[in-house]
Amino acid sequence: MKIYLAGPDVFLPDAVGIGQRKCDICRHHGVTGLYPLDNAVDLAAPGASMQIFRGNEAMMNASDAIIANLTPFRGPGADPGTVYELGYMAGQGKLCLSYCNDPASYAERVARSTKVTRGADNRLVDADGLTVEDFGLPDNLMMIHALDLHGSPLVMPHAKPVDIWRDLSAFETCVRLAAEKLG
Amino acid sequence: MKIYLAGPDVFLPDAVGIGQRKCDICRHHGVTGLYPLDNAVDLAAPGASMQIFRGNEAMMNASDAIIANLTPFRGPGADPGTVYELGYMAGQGKLCLSYCNDPASYAERVARSTKVTRGADNRLVDADGLTVEDFGLPDNLMMIHALDLHGSPLVMPHAKPVDIWRDLSAFETCVRLAAEKLG
Repeated sequence: MKIYLAGPDVFLPDAVGIGQRKCDICRHHGVTGLYPLDNAVDLAAPGASMQIFRGNEAMMNASDAIIANLTPFRGPGADPGTVYELGYMAGQGKLCLSYCNDPASYAERVARSTKVTRGADNRLVDADGLTVEDFGLPDNLMMIHALDLHGSPLVMPHAKPVDIWRDLSAFETCVRLAAEKLG
Repeated sequence: MKIYLAGPDVFLPDAVGIGQRKCDICRHHGVTGLYPLDNAVDLAAPGASMQIFRGNEAMMNASDAIIANLTPFRGPGADPGTVYELGYMAGQGKLCLSYCNDPASYAERVARSTKVTRGADNRLVDADGLTVEDFGLPDNLMMIHALDLHGSPLVMPHAKPVDIWRDLSAFETCVRLAAEKLG
């Protein structure tokens, strides 16, 4: 059983070490983790970004499931690159799991960086007048309900861990769920 | 030929009108646009978010192609909900097209809201020490190269239009390309 391990983890300074920890946890639960190649190619070489894309896509095609890290990245929502991969696996009918180390609702997260108000039509809007999804969900409904219907509901800790980028408890819960469902 | 019209357009106050304009442009080019249902359900009804999800997924399953609006949304990158849909369609082997009304590179966009520096290892990093993709691409490589390989390269104007949310020139270019490729 192969599981593609998506997430903005690849952008951390210790990305390679975190990938090794994630793969070790997978092995402990009897599954094989495949970690994206972003840090395994020469970034200065011509065509490096395409090489990473092709490698990651081949890994996804070879995997039975995905575990995506949807912890907010440079904004109130998940990393778009990671979310692309979640969608790609859902489109292929693969098993979809995700975790998020920030248990706040999406509306709460948006309110951290911009003024959020309720309009006359009861719509919640940001400072630019754009609607803020207000279903009490932790992120955009497309990802949250994709998990509900195509895998397992989003795994979140009760409280934000001290190190949201390196705490792998919620990740391990996903691995356990995936191993049960694939087994 | 049906084309799913993904984008954060659904969060604009005039979302319904923009959807109508997009569908009109599709009709003019001989294809049928399917616009997400986010504004066609009673948002206060129980289960509204799941109803939207199921409706949008059914529309995607019924479509031959997707045109996604990847204009940056609440941060330096595209709207994650839209990107989920792009990935979903790519995973199904459907034709993928997108446009973006902000022609800046991803690294330039990140630098608008946070201090970006180059580390000793030549890695471009943000204020949190997270790597900033630095391939000169306008967004995360997964979306950009998915378009290159699974449809048509990202369509962008030479200069940012005055109204990035309502200028549909780049959208119309995508419709023309999709009609040619599907025809």
